[in-house]
Amino acid sequence: MLAAARAAFAERGYDGASIRAIAGAAGVDPALVHHYFGTKDALFLAAVQAPVDPDEFLPAVLSGPPEERGAAVVRTVLRVWDGPGRPAALALVRSAVNHERSAAMLREFVLVKIIRRVIGSLDMPREEREARGALVASQVAGLVLMRYVLRLEPLASAPAEEVVAAVAPTLQRYLTGEVTLPTRRD
Amino acid sequence: MLAAARAAFAERGYDGASIRAIAGAAGVDPALVHHYFGTKDALFLAAVQAPVDPDEFLPAVLSGPPEERGAAVVRTVLRVWDGPGRPAALALVRSAVNHERSAAMLREFVLVKIIRRVIGSLDMPREEREARGALVASQVAGLVLMRYVLRLEPLASAPAEEVVAAVAPTLQRYLTGEVTLPTRRD
Repeated sequence: MLAAARAAFAERGYDGASIRAIAGAAGVDPALVHHYFGTKDALFLAAVQAPVDPDEFLPAVLSGPPEERGAAVVRTVLRVWDGPGRPAALALVRSAVNHERSAAMLREFVLVKIIRRVIGSLDMPREEREARGALVASQVAGLVLMRYVLRLEPLASAPAEEVVAAVAPTLQRYLTGEVTLPTRRD
Repeated sequence: MLAAARAAFAERGYDGASIRAIAGAAGVDPALVHHYFGTKDALFLAAVQAPVDPDEFLPAVLSGPPEERGAAVVRTVLRVWDGPGRPAALALVRSAVNHERSAAMLREFVLVKIIRRVIGSLDMPREEREARGALVASQVAGLVLMRYVLRLEPLASAPAEEVVAAVAPTLQRYLTGEVTLPTRRD
């Protein structure tokens, strides 16, 4: 079931993949998928092997005022990566960099479970939300890469709050500030 | 020789590794290393398997005025990644994410061959240069990850100049603007 779910989410995206189709590909009854995983959301989390469920920490990020959201995002990312979930998070990044399908899964995870919720609460057109979300993701991903993977100093050992102070203004601009938005060319 | 060079650069860093020690570890005469690679710099480039030699494009980045350096950095990164060097650059990133030693090599490469030169021309204390350089590297690395590895839209397909317009102000702030600098804790 998880293999079928990974294939479906990677190929058709979160929105395009249905529990019915995943069950069909796995040769089981859709009721069995529901029995094991409950919702499509829970099946997706299990398929991605996410180290944490964003639903556990996103409410705290979103509870503050919009003008402090940049700092809240950085602080939360560092808390997850400085916590016990780091090995699993690192495994997820490694897998995404190594395999196209894992990259597609992680992209869907970042898009559906994080960006949509962090930006979803801001009142703006969908295309603007996607563009701002991708810019936020680019700074967050690079921070993680430098602090936890390449371990480039001083980012590797600096106290979390110093990193928040340095990077939060960037995220705040991407979230709510003045930005020339990149547009998709299909 | 390359294996010995990789071990030395990863363990002792670019500054700490000497051609004499590398030759010793490889069981050859230092003159042979010089004969094959010329300088320590050239040996380092070969050991990293860098897709491009930063010396070829950094002069163009550094020739403009300091207040346009952020845009010049993004433009140059996109030119390299949109060019024929992408597969080799991707291989470098994959290797760094998978192996500690490769991560150390890439960190040295980013630090010695790129950050030092881009920021080296700005007049400020060494610690400030390192902190600003690491912040620049974090945004650049994340942009590369989202545009070329995860292929997150609209960053994946947006025209280069739109990406430059969106991200350059971030790099400009990290390079020369007001930033609370993160500090190393050893």
